Formats: sequence, structure tokens, C-alpha cells
Amino acid sequence: MPEQLPASYFIEGIERGDRVALGRAITLVESDLARDRHVARELLAGIRPPQNTFRIAVTGVPGAGKSSLIESLGQRFIRDNHRIAVLAVDPSSHLSGGSILGDKTRMPFLSSVDAAFVRPSPTRGRLGGVAESTAEAIRLCEAAGFDIVFVETVGVGQAEIDAVDVADLVLLVLIGGAGDELQGMKRGILEIADIVAINKADGPNSESAELARSTLQSIIRLMPETRPNWNRRILKCSTVTTDGIDDLFDCIATFRERVLASGHLPDNRSKQRLRRFHQSLIASLENEILGKPAVKALVERLAIQIQDGSVEPQDAAQEVLTRLFAPESKNTDV
Amino acid sequence: MPEQLPASYFIEGIERGDRVALGRAITLVESDLARDRHVARELLAGIRPPQNTFRIAVTGVPGAGKSSLIESLGQRFIRDNHRIAVLAVDPSSHLSGGSILGDKTRMPFLSSVDAAFVRPSPTRGRLGGVAESTAEAIRLCEAAGFDIVFVETVGVGQAEIDAVDVADLVLLVLIGGAGDELQGMKRGILEIADIVAINKADGPNSESAELARSTLQSIIRLMPETRPNWNRRILKCSTVTTDGIDDLFDCIATFRERVLASGHLPDNRSKQRLRRFHQSLIASLENEILGKPAVKALVERLAIQIQDGSVEPQDAAQEVLTRLFAPESKNTDV
Repeated sequence: MPEQLPASYFIEGIERGDRVALGRAITLVESDLARDRHVARELLAGIRPPQNTFRIAVTGVPGAGKSSLIESLGQRFIRDNHRIAVLAVDPSSHLSGGSILGDKTRMPFLSSVDAAFVRPSPTRGRLGGVAESTAEAIRLCEAAGFDIVFVETVGVGQAEIDAVDVADLVLLVLIGGAGDELQGMKRGILEIADIVAINKADGPNSESAELARSTLQSIIRLMPETRPNWNRRILKCSTVTTDGIDDLFDCIATFRERVLASGHLPDNRSKQRLRRFHQSLIASLENEILGKPAVKALVERLAIQIQDGSVEPQDAAQEVLTRLFAPESKNTDV
Repeated sequence: MPEQLPASYFIEGIERGDRVALGRAITLVESDLARDRHVARELLAGIRPPQNTFRIAVTGVPGAGKSSLIESLGQRFIRDNHRIAVLAVDPSSHLSGGSILGDKTRMPFLSSVDAAFVRPSPTRGRLGGVAESTAEAIRLCEAAGFDIVFVETVGVGQAEIDAVDVADLVLLVLIGGAGDELQGMKRGILEIADIVAINKADGPNSESAELARSTLQSIIRLMPETRPNWNRRILKCSTVTTDGIDDLFDCIATFRERVLASGHLPDNRSKQRLRRFHQSLIASLENEILGKPAVKALVERLAIQIQDGSVEPQDAAQEVLTRLFAPESKNTDV
């Protein structure tokens, strides 16, 4: 937690591309404290990130080699004069505050050049959720001049699925034996993947990688496309042999050009913001209302009656609503 | 809408197995009217359906031959001295009040024997949702002595997915060219299917049916099982040639024996009831609170600011909450 600094410090620092100010600003938007949130709001309203940025969510099972893949892809983007930010989101782990070292060792190149900024994002789900603070961190990075932002997340839970919804492109990273791999993933992760990279397709894994590719190909035929003018792509690659990495990079570049050309990007992003607004609203409502002790107790009582069949689910829901909104009981019972 | 009858009329009628009373009781639980709901509550609390019943959801794309399949399976259950109820749920159609004729013609045997009761369920989503009134209709049928209840629904929307959650067994019916078929289905329908029947696997369709089977087999390998001690089954069948119908019936019978033997059935059912309670509660809360004109207007104002980037989604959500629950504004603004 940094000492309280004014929004102007962060805004000016970020516009100068000051990495320390950027890092502190990200910590600020991750904070739940009201005083921090107050400054964060002013900060976010004060920055003007450019429009021509691109956000890539990289998700997949642990050990799929997401970081190495980002390292390889990032190098190529930098070669094309882009500046890269990497936000490693791991909501499922409450320990990965320490994973910054892990990230730096897994991305030695990106961790050592000025054209890249590597930073682990919060594990603590802020009230707005991981997606919320990640989305804000992305805008800070973009305002600081990093025009390609990678969001690395482990696709095992709803929080991760939400985190992916901040991206312009979803890259799912799997390894051979995809069947078993996918088992551990949150259902629906495959549906939202624009590109699937089957990584570690080298040496003894080549065969299972090919099997995974053909199986996934047949599955993907069954799914609606993720966007207009884009057919899901499945590619095999290896960060060890570098086979397929250039193809993957070209595929991402093609997707980016199409999206930027289509003009849909700002529209998609504001749709994402509206979705997060609604999710945040519902979550806060539940939390605010169903969190009250009197309501909790009522809900628990009713749950028992529902299970023994003496009350119907809908009638029980109605009873809670009545207790909440019937004028005479509003300030007494609940 | 029947004239207002006391709960005792329905309870006694249902316990006698009076089909007219049962039909009227189902109409009653489908009603949104407060006075009807009052009687319905008393009715549902007054019946004592036996525990050893079995609920089969039959879902799939329109034209997959669900009704003919139910007709064939129903005959076999009746042969084994079961009594069958069929509830045809079609929330996606607002016209299928007239589909009772359709159901009777598509199920001539079940529509003509005492051992079966065929009835279309509501199209109007009651506040509790289709699942809610369907679940109540099921209990009425069971109390009337129908121990095997089929719930037929078209798996194209969330309402249908919810409707499926009233069942002990989910049977998904597809036809050859499953790829294209699944496109039209709600995502997730495959995940919840215990048994997949590829129907119309006869004559010219045999080939595409086999292709569908093998494709689905490879997909299903990627999915977690639906229940402990059950591996998803995919079977081909034809109600025309009757090929595979006996196998399908045996598969369902095996599933039923396992579930009944496991003793999990009552537990699963009460979990379903709790889920419906929570869904109903959240839906009512949203409806009650976000439905207020003042709140709607505020949300719309904020949506514009979120899109132009001048407000962050989470801060907007917070503002709505504050307006709703800050004492000084509770009775004025909202």
C-alpha cells in the first residue's frame, strides 16, 4: 500500500511513462479502501489511453506454458515496434503476490527491456471482481504507452472467465492430451477462445498434440463463431523448438488487423464495460440485501422447509421479498 | 382458468387419480394470480407424492422426434407396470397452448390409455419461471399415481435448461449431422445430458447418425461426468424401424436402478429445489429493485457515462447502491 498520493501524481507519472508511478497506480486501483478508491476514480477519469491498443487474454491450464508463450509473442511484437504490458492474474491463488519473481524468471526478456512492463495483478477479488481491477490496470498500462496488453490467467474458474472478458482477443493455451486438460478447465472457456494454441507440441508430445488438435477441430465445428468475420483457429506450437510460434504470431496479427479494420473494437469494449457494470450491480445487491443477518437467518429457515417439502421454492422467495419490502416490516424484522 | 375450487377438491381428486382434477390442479399451479397461488400453496402442501418416482427430461432440437421417442419409451414402461405422465414444456413458443392436439396426435398410444397422462405445460413463464411450475406439475402427477414423469422440452434457451433441472435423468435427443444440430442448442445442454439418443438413425440418415455418434463420443470424453457412478452414454435409435429403442430403454432402466439404489435421489431433488429458490430470489430482487422507474433512469444515465469512459463500471454500480440504501435518499430519489 503506497502512502496517499494525489491523482495528479499518478496521471503525470503515467503520461511520462514512469514505471514506478504506473506500478503504484495499479496497486491503487486494486485497493478496496474508500480513500484509495476516491483517488483511483479521479485517476481513471484523468487519463486518456489511446484507442489503437490491443488486449490479449492468454488463458489455459497451469503448466501449459502460457508465460513462455507470452515471452515469445511479446518479443515479436516488440520487434514490430510495439510496447508490451503483461498482467498476470491469478484469482485462484491467494499467494501469488510472490509470483512476481516467478513471472520475471518465466519472462526474462520481457522483464528486462524498457519496451515491456510485467506485473502480477491482484489475487484478492475486489468487490468489483478481478475483471474490474484488471480492466482498470489495462487502461493504466495503455495510458503509459504500452499498446499491446497481455492478460495471463488460469482458466479454471468463473473469476478467470470474467477476467478474460476484458480482452479483444482470447488465446487459449492447451497441451497434448487436451481431453484430460480440458477436464480441469471451466466449462465455456473453449466457447470464448478466438485462437487455441496447443503448446509443447515437440518431441514425445507431438503425437498427443496432434490428437488434441484434431479432436478440438471436430468440437469447434459444433460451436458458434466467437465474432463476425473470424473462424476459430487451432495451432500447434512449441516455445522450445519455436515451431509454430511465427504462425501463431501471424494469426494473432491477422485477427488484430481485422478487428481494428472492422471498427468494432470500441463497441466491443463498451459492451464489456456495460456487462461488468451489470455484474457488479447484481453482486452488490445480493451482497447488500442477502448479506443482512436477519435475511440470512430467514433464508436458512426457509431452506430447511424447502428441503422437507413444506414450502415451495418460489413461495419461499416471495416470502423473503415480502419481508424485505413490506413497509411495516422494513425497519423492524429486517 | 377453472372456477375457484378449494384445495381439498384437488387433493382428494388427485389422491383418487381423477384426471380432471389433476388437469385443473396443473392449470392452478401454472397461474400467477394471487388467489390461485394461495390455493396452490395449500394444495402442494397437502399432497404426499411417493418417493420412488422417476423424472426424465427429454430435450433436443425441434424435429428430433422427441415425442415419438417418448411414445415408444412410455409403452415399454407401461409394459413393466409403470404409469406415465408426459409434460410437454415449450417456453419458447407462446402458441403451444394449442399443441395439446399436436401432442395427442404425436403420442396416440399414451394419449389413449389410462396408464398415461399427456399434458402440455405452460408457455407463459410464471414469475418463478417455467422450471418452477413444471416441478410443481410433476409432483401433482406423482401424487396422482404416475410414477414415471417425462418432461419434454426444446433445448434452445435458458428457460429450457432450467426446465431440465427438475429431472432425475436428462435425455438429449439429436439427429444426424449433430454438428449443425448442436449449433441451434443452448450451450451447456450437452454437459448436462446423462444419455444422448441420436434418433432417426435409419435409411439414408444412418451414415450421418454414425458420424454424429463418433463426433459426440470424442466431445464427451472431454467433459466431466454428470453424476458419480455414471458414464454418459450415446446411443443411435430409430422410432421408425424401432432399432435401438430397446437398448435405449434398457440404458434408462439401468440409470434409474443405479440412481434409486444409490439413495442420492432425494438429495439431488432437494438440491434442485434449493437452486430454484435461489434463482427465484435473485430474479425477484432484480425485478423488484432494478425495475423501479427511478432506478431504471439512473442506470440508463450511468450506462451512457460508462460507455464514454467518464465513469468506471464498479463506481457506477456503487452509486446505484448508495442511492438505494443511503437513508436520506431512500424515500426521495428512489
